[in-house]
Amino acid sequence: MAPEFADRMKNIHQSFVREILKVADNPEIISFAGGLPNPDSFPVEALKEAANKVLSEDGAQALQYSTSEGYQPLREYIARRYDKNGLNVDSENILITNGSQQCIDLVGKVFLNQDDKVLLERPTYLAAIQALGLYQPEFREVPLLEDGVEISFLEKILTGERIKMFYAVTNFQNPTGITYSQRKREEVAELLQKQDTLLVEDNPYGEIRFAGKNLAPINSYLTDGVLFGSFSKIVAPGMRMGWIVASDDIMDNLVIAKQASDLHSNYFTQRVVYQFLQDNDVDKHVQKIRRMYRKQRDLMIRMIQEHFPAEVHYTEPEGGMFLWVTLPPGLSSMDLFDLALKEDVAFVPGETFYVNDAEKNTLRLNFSNSDREKIEIGIKRLGKSIEKLIVQKNI
Amino acid sequence: MAPEFADRMKNIHQSFVREILKVADNPEIISFAGGLPNPDSFPVEALKEAANKVLSEDGAQALQYSTSEGYQPLREYIARRYDKNGLNVDSENILITNGSQQCIDLVGKVFLNQDDKVLLERPTYLAAIQALGLYQPEFREVPLLEDGVEISFLEKILTGERIKMFYAVTNFQNPTGITYSQRKREEVAELLQKQDTLLVEDNPYGEIRFAGKNLAPINSYLTDGVLFGSFSKIVAPGMRMGWIVASDDIMDNLVIAKQASDLHSNYFTQRVVYQFLQDNDVDKHVQKIRRMYRKQRDLMIRMIQEHFPAEVHYTEPEGGMFLWVTLPPGLSSMDLFDLALKEDVAFVPGETFYVNDAEKNTLRLNFSNSDREKIEIGIKRLGKSIEKLIVQKNI
Repeated sequence: MAPEFADRMKNIHQSFVREILKVADNPEIISFAGGLPNPDSFPVEALKEAANKVLSEDGAQALQYSTSEGYQPLREYIARRYDKNGLNVDSENILITNGSQQCIDLVGKVFLNQDDKVLLERPTYLAAIQALGLYQPEFREVPLLEDGVEISFLEKILTGERIKMFYAVTNFQNPTGITYSQRKREEVAELLQKQDTLLVEDNPYGEIRFAGKNLAPINSYLTDGVLFGSFSKIVAPGMRMGWIVASDDIMDNLVIAKQASDLHSNYFTQRVVYQFLQDNDVDKHVQKIRRMYRKQRDLMIRMIQEHFPAEVHYTEPEGGMFLWVTLPPGLSSMDLFDLALKEDVAFVPGETFYVNDAEKNTLRLNFSNSDREKIEIGIKRLGKSIEKLIVQKNI
Repeated sequence: MAPEFADRMKNIHQSFVREILKVADNPEIISFAGGLPNPDSFPVEALKEAANKVLSEDGAQALQYSTSEGYQPLREYIARRYDKNGLNVDSENILITNGSQQCIDLVGKVFLNQDDKVLLERPTYLAAIQALGLYQPEFREVPLLEDGVEISFLEKILTGERIKMFYAVTNFQNPTGITYSQRKREEVAELLQKQDTLLVEDNPYGEIRFAGKNLAPINSYLTDGVLFGSFSKIVAPGMRMGWIVASDDIMDNLVIAKQASDLHSNYFTQRVVYQFLQDNDVDKHVQKIRRMYRKQRDLMIRMIQEHFPAEVHYTEPEGGMFLWVTLPPGLSSMDLFDLALKEDVAFVPGETFYVNDAEKNTLRLNFSNSDREKIEIGIKRLGKSIEKLIVQKNI
């Protein structure tokens, strides 16, 4: 007989996203639901060359066990790339992970005791709720405005009780597409510096900025936060390659947690990704992705402007993969989901991105994994469904 | 200012293995310390062909995000391979992980509350102590005899208090090389069936049997245990590919924990490993590894017989990568380590593999990642060092 599961497993944030993604997997459905990069952007040929080179030149070594910290030249590459962007990071302070999702888990493991208070943006990245939730913290939420979190609210929360960590996606946030302004970054840093609250800054989309000016992470104003990065959006997500930047003390503990979790990240793939980065013009490649996604975002916004009722609000992200739609108050995006599905269109209803008191009239649209035709037809149909919903609900 | 680390980080099993492995990394040292497969056994060319094929035929898809459970054809391959060995496993009950180390972490996450009792073999796999230790259980230990755990002791422990899980490596155990006999397997199963203790059966070396008869895992006599497997020893460890077999209920929870931990295992590598398994004669490849390791084990044992004092005891493993040496009582393998290092020979002192009251006169020798010359010279020198130690200690 199997024993009982751990208490933490009762704590799972119920999510219908898996079910939604399954529905959206039907090829007849135009899906804006998933959070996938566009596979047309994957450098397949260049990765093939990189894999060949690694296996030809150093195959046996590249297939052996390796260190928990990660492949040293890859860590140095990441440090140099930060340097180019004006951020001073030592390669010794970089841990290679299985995508940035594992960063969240490791930071939870290293820092969270049961009932610790964790502050999330409202709304926030669903899988962060799930990963951190397994460490049984109490969640608090701070509202997101168009230029980052609401500062007065953040101050009240940080001074009102002891908050162990604040998880924030500061560029083109998932799900909203919102980016923190320069001023907000400085204000958040100033507030955090007075507290022993750890800033956990997740930045999976940072390189995919196609409008506005590049802004330094909030971590650049702090001594002790942690910063995540990922190759999922600039190389390919199936290879699960991310990293954490952390100060020495935190790094030591993260390495222990990483070693306990899975010894080390896939070494073969670390070598392949590094070879790809060495042998190719990465900036040019990233530029290509930016142009592609910008075009798709522009088209999606144009179609929204043409086909959604005027009272529907939407964000205009300066990068990343998502935009966020707010229906008139009183409408439910779950109802809209059912209507849209009849028209073979799918998205993710917003309520899944909240811990408490979800804003039920919100929804997330992905524009990265799409094309002109799908966006034109899909948004048009979605507009019709919204109109139908408004008529039904008599709003 | 950074906040305090979680309590679980204070719970870390202190280990000097990392330091030892660093010392042993010096190319002038003959090291029997690491737990590495022999890189000469890695199918580099075949993996290169597999990677090429995957990227040529389905590159964009193979680089995209995928499901948490793992690549379905790979799960089916594993199920078929069990079937061939007389074990009935459904592919739906297989979760692909980042090596079998992650299996340990996920099972800890899904089952362990703080202070739950976890039973370990004595001695046991070091990284299991570390991975499970982070869930803050209380450890118990059951002695290993030459044919598996001591049954009367196991019975006393299982009936004396509630044991949540029993972690066992039943084939060619790390560190001892010991394999459970058929009778022991049945006796352990019988005892466990009366309790709600989860058997966590780790089997990373099972395929590398070069003597004796293949025996079914203890899990084949149970309905609810979990069984781990790994491609690290039959394909390559750098690719971090392992799996868990678990019943439906447990599987559901493991998938949730896997998703929270890192979304899914490296999909590209899953595809490459599957392609390799499809296109090559795996049995022949495994046979080659078995022959190689058997030869190395035979030589190591012959050299031990020739060069170690007669009062030194050693195991004769029927497979795997390690053998276990017991010095006369009163001697310390840490003292031997210092002496041997002066002769440029390294190994892992046994005390690191115990939770409490380590047997200080034990040590682990790896024979897989070696060659004829190293074994001949290294064991000869080690024999001399043992003799020197005996003289020093006047035993």
